[in-house]
Amino acid sequence: MTAILILGGGRSGKSRHALQLTEGITGRPVFIATAIAEDDEMRRRIDRHRSERGAHWTTVEAPFDLEGAIARLTANDTAVVDCLTLWLSNSMRENRDPAAKIADLLNTVGDSPARLILVSNEVGLGIVPATPLGRDFRDEQGRLNQRLAEIADQVIFVAAGLPLTLKPQQ
Amino acid sequence: MTAILILGGGRSGKSRHALQLTEGITGRPVFIATAIAEDDEMRRRIDRHRSERGAHWTTVEAPFDLEGAIARLTANDTAVVDCLTLWLSNSMRENRDPAAKIADLLNTVGDSPARLILVSNEVGLGIVPATPLGRDFRDEQGRLNQRLAEIADQVIFVAAGLPLTLKPQQ
Amino acid sequence: MTAILILGGGRSGKSRHALQLTEGITGRPVFIATAIAEDDEMRRRIDRHRSERGAHWTTVEAPFDLEGAIARLTANDTAVVDCLTLWLSNSMRENRDPAAKIADLLNTVGDSPARLILVSNEVGLGIVPATPLGRDFRDEQGRLNQRLAEIADQVIFVAAGLPLTLKPQQ
Repeated sequence: MTAILILGGGRSGKSRHALQLTEGITGRPVFIATAIAEDDEMRRRIDRHRSERGAHWTTVEAPFDLEGAIARLTANDTAVVDCLTLWLSNSMRENRDPAAKIADLLNTVGDSPARLILVSNEVGLGIVPATPLGRDFRDEQGRLNQRLAEIADQVIFVAAGLPLTLKPQQ
Repeated sequence: MTAILILGGGRSGKSRHALQLTEGITGRPVFIATAIAEDDEMRRRIDRHRSERGAHWTTVEAPFDLEGAIARLTANDTAVVDCLTLWLSNSMRENRDPAAKIADLLNTVGDSPARLILVSNEVGLGIVPATPLGRDFRDEQGRLNQRLAEIADQVIFVAAGLPLTLKPQQ
Repeated sequence: MTAILILGGGRSGKSRHALQLTEGITGRPVFIATAIAEDDEMRRRIDRHRSERGAHWTTVEAPFDLEGAIARLTANDTAVVDCLTLWLSNSMRENRDPAAKIADLLNTVGDSPARLILVSNEVGLGIVPATPLGRDFRDEQGRLNQRLAEIADQVIFVAAGLPLTLKPQQ
């Protein structure tokens, strides 16, 4: 496995930066989307992004079974996972304690022969959330980011579209 | 145009840093304030800040027509705009879709012969806001910061009063 | 005094980073905890962390009188204060205007003969909080972080467990 973790806030340009990192790669580019197409507007948005990426991209929708989608990648693949925050949110809607799913994900990432570019939100820099679910989500997301950062070969923080290296390429 | 974008959180010291960057400049220092003096307390605060800056500063209040205030600057001016977040918030209270105003602002900034120091908040690093207006505001602010960062000659992130360079001087 | 300020979001790994900085120190390690053991679960958590740190650590609980706890340290001590955000929150529950307490704290930190590692949250990078108390807290925390950063010999920002230097060691 080689993995790059891209952290950033909402509308920070982190997805665009992740896509830029795939320019010039050889092999098959795969986009793993974790958003749920719950209504027509969301479906149109997903389809528009898909056509913007171009026909050479393979798109996989994995709002719940991200582990499975990563496990099916091969050594020839470069995959952008966009994003872990939506996946964690989807997982916690099903099961408030995502510990087992997170352990599976980390194992799958560690074992993957593909090149992975993982996009995730930093959500802990506001005041303490008002609801118990908000606080649980913030805690789980923070812990997930720490564990991904530990195994990633490189960690980049994006603000206003600009990258800042948190962990230089190993 | 030369423009420096100063990003940071609430009470991060970003305004003070912007003012420090004007030390030693020649030409006319202009402070463009976007706060609305809605009550006596706010009015007193604005007046106190004005007297702290000193008599050599020209102060312009532009809570809505920031584009006009920037368009009136000359090549002799160094202007601190404090801040784009209040201006965006004022704009979205009038019109929930600020796309046209933002396009005007970016054009005006790009065409200005003045030196500009633009202060703006990073607001996307907490959990997803609870209200639709909160989410829209976060999206618009994030997009505005990305577009300003693209045209700025230099971008600085301020935390606890300390500057971190996101985009070195071009 | 020598003081290192560790800033970061919730679950960013800042406490763990603070503890790592004490590895290899000589003298007495002191852990100053500002959490309040309000119920059995919290009490168990505090006790578990205490046993994880090991028997060579002295633990002091100072949810309110942090000034007093710091004033009692000697030149032989290296103290981790975890964290200033809980202390500020406890202080503002007692007295909404913490100005006098903050002034005392800053004086005590400045006069201390000990090595201090101060952990504090960055809370200003979300949208404006919905409640007056949330806004006041954000303002006070931001101001406190700025003043601590000014007197600290070194300031480190932690995200996803990774340190980023905001102020290099003086």
